[in-house]
Amino acid sequence: MPHTLGELAALLQGELQGPAELIIEGIAPIDQATPAEITFITQKRFARLADRSRAAAFIVSREFAGLPRPLIIVDHPYLAYARVATLFAPPLQRWPGISDQACLGRDVSLGREVSIAPLVFIGARAQLGDRVTVMPGCVLGDEVKIGADTLLYPQVTILERCTVGARCIIHSGTVIGSDGFGFVPGAAGHVKIPQLGIVIIGDDVEIGANCAIDRGALGATRVGRGVKIDNLVHLAHNVEVGEHSFLVAQVGVSGSTKLGKGVTLAGQVGLVGHIELGDGVQVGAQSGVNHSVAAGQTVSGSPARPHREWLLSMGHLPKLPDIYQRLKQLEKQVSELAARLPQEPET
Amino acid sequence: MPHTLGELAALLQGELQGPAELIIEGIAPIDQATPAEITFITQKRFARLADRSRAAAFIVSREFAGLPRPLIIVDHPYLAYARVATLFAPPLQRWPGISDQACLGRDVSLGREVSIAPLVFIGARAQLGDRVTVMPGCVLGDEVKIGADTLLYPQVTILERCTVGARCIIHSGTVIGSDGFGFVPGAAGHVKIPQLGIVIIGDDVEIGANCAIDRGALGATRVGRGVKIDNLVHLAHNVEVGEHSFLVAQVGVSGSTKLGKGVTLAGQVGLVGHIELGDGVQVGAQSGVNHSVAAGQTVSGSPARPHREWLLSMGHLPKLPDIYQRLKQLEKQVSELAARLPQEPET
Amino acid sequence: MPHTLGELAALLQGELQGPAELIIEGIAPIDQATPAEITFITQKRFARLADRSRAAAFIVSREFAGLPRPLIIVDHPYLAYARVATLFAPPLQRWPGISDQACLGRDVSLGREVSIAPLVFIGARAQLGDRVTVMPGCVLGDEVKIGADTLLYPQVTILERCTVGARCIIHSGTVIGSDGFGFVPGAAGHVKIPQLGIVIIGDDVEIGANCAIDRGALGATRVGRGVKIDNLVHLAHNVEVGEHSFLVAQVGVSGSTKLGKGVTLAGQVGLVGHIELGDGVQVGAQSGVNHSVAAGQTVSGSPARPHREWLLSMGHLPKLPDIYQRLKQLEKQVSELAARLPQEPET
Repeated sequence: MPHTLGELAALLQGELQGPAELIIEGIAPIDQATPAEITFITQKRFARLADRSRAAAFIVSREFAGLPRPLIIVDHPYLAYARVATLFAPPLQRWPGISDQACLGRDVSLGREVSIAPLVFIGARAQLGDRVTVMPGCVLGDEVKIGADTLLYPQVTILERCTVGARCIIHSGTVIGSDGFGFVPGAAGHVKIPQLGIVIIGDDVEIGANCAIDRGALGATRVGRGVKIDNLVHLAHNVEVGEHSFLVAQVGVSGSTKLGKGVTLAGQVGLVGHIELGDGVQVGAQSGVNHSVAAGQTVSGSPARPHREWLLSMGHLPKLPDIYQRLKQLEKQVSELAARLPQEPET
Repeated sequence: MPHTLGELAALLQGELQGPAELIIEGIAPIDQATPAEITFITQKRFARLADRSRAAAFIVSREFAGLPRPLIIVDHPYLAYARVATLFAPPLQRWPGISDQACLGRDVSLGREVSIAPLVFIGARAQLGDRVTVMPGCVLGDEVKIGADTLLYPQVTILERCTVGARCIIHSGTVIGSDGFGFVPGAAGHVKIPQLGIVIIGDDVEIGANCAIDRGALGATRVGRGVKIDNLVHLAHNVEVGEHSFLVAQVGVSGSTKLGKGVTLAGQVGLVGHIELGDGVQVGAQSGVNHSVAAGQTVSGSPARPHREWLLSMGHLPKLPDIYQRLKQLEKQVSELAARLPQEPET
Repeated sequence: MPHTLGELAALLQGELQGPAELIIEGIAPIDQATPAEITFITQKRFARLADRSRAAAFIVSREFAGLPRPLIIVDHPYLAYARVATLFAPPLQRWPGISDQACLGRDVSLGREVSIAPLVFIGARAQLGDRVTVMPGCVLGDEVKIGADTLLYPQVTILERCTVGARCIIHSGTVIGSDGFGFVPGAAGHVKIPQLGIVIIGDDVEIGANCAIDRGALGATRVGRGVKIDNLVHLAHNVEVGEHSFLVAQVGVSGSTKLGKGVTLAGQVGLVGHIELGDGVQVGAQSGVNHSVAAGQTVSGSPARPHREWLLSMGHLPKLPDIYQRLKQLEKQVSELAARLPQEPET
């Protein structure tokens, strides 16, 4: 579905430099765009590729207003890219209505325009809001609640009594509401602690593929509004993730740990249980956090420390063999110096 | 299904202090319990919350026998909590009998009171023991054997010829019996080594969500009786996990490595292949173990070392920049001292 | 299906020492082989087990030609093992034809001898080459293309428009084509960048269980010919993996990072985004690579450094507490020495 450059400029509330009637059929990176596509410059280092780009037009910041090509000048080219990409995204292919090859339990409540694909199982008394999309192979347990406009990709599992907010996107293979890992160690083996709680996912949350989010032991595991979670992330029982936090792939958060708002955990980070990370905390990739961290701090390393201190230590680590040699050399020198001094008088 | 406080005290073989006829409708954490619920104190730091708790009664150790509230006094409050939680756990919702929307292969053998939900596939000659529960979306290959009372949550995959013991719980998305990662490197690429073995899971094992347990190249990958495995754990081909071991989330164990009994691997630990960890070994979170570890040892770090040594090194790491500065300062001082000494006589 | 030792020797183009008519019914490790099975010696340390092995015959290199047992002498015993194991592998159990309990969308194109099991969903206009096998529980989106002879184990998800080459093996639970993790940070939360690209998997690729491979934001995420990927691996959007690379379990590769040909990433490695690893780069287990690495290099550690330097630093890390003590001791000594020297004259 093509758009004119003028339409795009209007959508972006940007300044148009060039022919408003130019037909744009898609968006692509600067080095791959065809003459029918628009592209964008988000970083200076990409600007040098503009001369050779075949793109029909460019979305740029004012800094590049002098580029002698059709332009849409905006304050935030990256955000503008997201908006134009949304415009050109192929429409979501939803199963029309409720497939008769899906299995729905008793007293399931469905909003308007719900899409339930074949090979879906939905348990008794589940509630799906308006325009919810459930793709093939999903399994929803009894009394699960899904908010309006939420999209479940194929093979998502949401277990009994868990709730997912509105406008969420859950990617394939993700499991919500598996039992927490709770056992009482005992002489005859580990005794299971029944996991009686649930998971509560807020509105506008996106969760990647093959994640596992455990239900609370008692009470709830909570993922706040607007949180974005990448692939293969593990959240243990009774974890709480504050609004708009950002968890990159393969992160693991242990039981009862609480993240504030806007926390960022980079890839492969691990957090021990029963700690709190304040609002806006940032944790560097592969770090292991074993203590609470105050709001606004950035930490790195395993065990994690203030990021700058960690950087300094890591910067010195390569010097360690040299430090050791120089220390031994110094010991020898000092010992020789001492020998050359007259005996210290008795005190 | 409510119980009286007296019934609970009897179940726990605990000492009742308070009204035996008090009705208890559930169990909850000390700060969340309603006046209809019982709670428990497992750690001193929670005891200070007792005054403000609305709980109807408390499960406590003798240490807290003076608390002026209805009490059940027991030796192990944490274990008592697990038992009471089991009592109040909602009954497992099982599909009644064998769904006619499940696909069963030829000569499948089913014990008594087996539950097979819709959208389940079971291969030829599979054998399911009494009271096995297979939830929607599970796939069992040919000749899989499942022991009595085992519970497979939705979307579990168990591939051909693998066996799972009795009273196991396997959580959603977990794959048992995928091919091991075995290739012969060659000039024209990696040549696949067919993975002819199986996986053997013992009795009373629990495995979390989205784990992957590979079949043996030849022979078996083995998970011993009573082992508990958290989410997103990887066990490679021919790994052996000894009885009652405890593997926390996102652990990875490479091929042919053997764990003794009662081994604990904390979160995100990685083990190289072809090593042995003795009985009772404990490995700290995010550690990387590249050598065998004798029974009873605790190791940490990547590469892993004895835990106390590792702690000591990590404790000194922040000092490294300072050590380097002080070393340089010393070198300067020593050089100045040497200059102030008379020339060393020729030897 | 048994074979004679002579047949095996011919298959392997090896030298036969022993009775050509000896019946061999399988292959097994040296300490487990029965008198009806052949075994193999790939490493010297296993040779000492030969005396006590009950195996009918041995596949060995010339080095062990003196072993007084029926032998097949070959240049590469490990490769020979792979070939003999292939011979004895049980035939793949494929659903005969297209199950009428599978759901196929409009205009699906199927090659000859395709196998589609029950409980499979295939979207509109998907194309499956000759002899493709789709096991139970798989979901393929619209316009997915699968090359000839490719095998999808149960519960694989391949989302719309992604393509998989010929002779690939994809293990259970793996997701191909989930959205990349792309958001524009903003005051009102993260704005999703639609992920418009696809995933392109080359020929002869094997991908383990429960992996997640995201589609490109724009353009493609690419996995080259002959690449082998272990379980629980994460590849972010627009990653490119060069031919015959080898990614061990639980690896994570961030967005737009490019791996050359023949790259090896050991277990639990993490790579930041937008870097390049040249041909043949090797990365040690649990390393974190935050910069591009030139072809042929081996790196280790987090942050990753040249492997030998990292080894040297790690070797010195245990000495750090001692280094600190000795430094303090030296400072004391030097200070005492300085005190024993006459005052330095004013300059």
